[in-house]
Amino acid sequence: MENNEVAKIPVWRLIGESGRKIEDVVARESPLTIFLNNQELVTLLCSPKDLGYLAIGFLFSEGLVGSKAEIKKVMVDQPRGVARVETEGADALADELVFKRFITSGCGRGASFYSAADVQNQVRVESQTQISTEQVHTLMKEFIRHSEVFKTTGGVHSAALCDTKSILVFNEDIGRHNAIDKIFGECLLEAIPTDGRLIITSGRISSEILLKVAKRNLPILISKSAPTDLGVKLADDLGITLLGFVRGKRINVYTNDWRIVNDGR
Amino acid sequence: MENNEVAKIPVWRLIGESGRKIEDVVARESPLTIFLNNQELVTLLCSPKDLGYLAIGFLFSEGLVGSKAEIKKVMVDQPRGVARVETEGADALADELVFKRFITSGCGRGASFYSAADVQNQVRVESQTQISTEQVHTLMKEFIRHSEVFKTTGGVHSAALCDTKSILVFNEDIGRHNAIDKIFGECLLEAIPTDGRLIITSGRISSEILLKVAKRNLPILISKSAPTDLGVKLADDLGITLLGFVRGKRINVYTNDWRIVNDGR
Repeated sequence: MENNEVAKIPVWRLIGESGRKIEDVVARESPLTIFLNNQELVTLLCSPKDLGYLAIGFLFSEGLVGSKAEIKKVMVDQPRGVARVETEGADALADELVFKRFITSGCGRGASFYSAADVQNQVRVESQTQISTEQVHTLMKEFIRHSEVFKTTGGVHSAALCDTKSILVFNEDIGRHNAIDKIFGECLLEAIPTDGRLIITSGRISSEILLKVAKRNLPILISKSAPTDLGVKLADDLGITLLGFVRGKRINVYTNDWRIVNDGR
Repeated sequence: MENNEVAKIPVWRLIGESGRKIEDVVARESPLTIFLNNQELVTLLCSPKDLGYLAIGFLFSEGLVGSKAEIKKVMVDQPRGVARVETEGADALADELVFKRFITSGCGRGASFYSAADVQNQVRVESQTQISTEQVHTLMKEFIRHSEVFKTTGGVHSAALCDTKSILVFNEDIGRHNAIDKIFGECLLEAIPTDGRLIITSGRISSEILLKVAKRNLPILISKSAPTDLGVKLADDLGITLLGFVRGKRINVYTNDWRIVNDGR
């Protein structure tokens, strides 16, 4: 674990009436301002690591970058919290379009994606990938082992790209959206295939997460946490197998359960 | 609990290799599009309850509404997920200002608030309110008892306004920001004082949450979860007593600990 992602602070720890001053470790939170073709786009608050992956993953999730070929340059100034991305076809990206997207849907507090063109245009995931319950539990154990910053601070979300056997790409961030965007940014920049693979996340599954996953054509989404009804509906519509509350020996399979190989059906 | 906040869905529950099809309950997720003086501002994804409170709380947190006196009308169309707010002095609110705010800071994925005028202009909370560790634990127990939707679905965040003795306003939402905005929206519309009172939240404490709390002049912020380093720094700077990881008999006091009455110091 890089020191950069955590900070030491003094804390007064009370247990019942008895207290002592100790040094504790918390997750760091830093701003990242993304410039796309010299236009300031957004400032995210994030864990100060892999900022280039975050910038690219964010732009991909927002539909502002479609492929690696479009990316001409990624410059990250980590100390100043700035990422500058240059893409091909910058002229085609009218100011108004960017503004409109960010106001109606880019705001991570919520988006109206599912009612917008994004969903209607989203192709169903047709991958034939299957996974056994045992493989799910093995991956989740591995995922929890990887989650160093969470274990130290309790203050971050984790995400991972896997095949059915092991974790291929892993990241953590104070934001659950950021953690997934970092994964996809790394996949895009390092040409790591996502088709037919799986995503594991520590976070709750809302509609926005489902759309991110569908955009990368991933057939299976696994979470330690709960989904929303809209998350379940989108998973169903988009052909994604959604697993929630994967804890201990338990799995909730919400949608497209034909991808789960299990004798106890 | 209103049925409106949860949905029943079929789920295949696996425990080890043994599975059965059951009906499970998940949190509902719905869009709320906010119009301010007939201008479409943002679409939030939220729990479909208290949408008027959410709209007003959001506008207050974003600095677009300052007091109850400014609000001329709040119209909520719950089935269509629309809230229309009319305020005094609408003309003063230039389009550009709104756009700028939403792009640089309104996006709940992160904000650059703390480096902006918002923080510099934020007055320190000077309230002399104090609370004992026993009162903290009593409030947290009460808070957890209130969290009905969380207990049923595991998929929402809770927030509450309290005095040192009891919970005064409580809400739940799929978004941790929304839950707090609903509290503040209710306080504003129902003229419930917040000065010198406390906020409890189930969610992690990032810089944005601190700023929301400071804007309402609340001296004490209590969370079940972890803070970030920037959250701690802001709490320190803004004169707010920040308590995290309040679980069982444990409390972490991060800042301004003179408001905690305890013999074990």
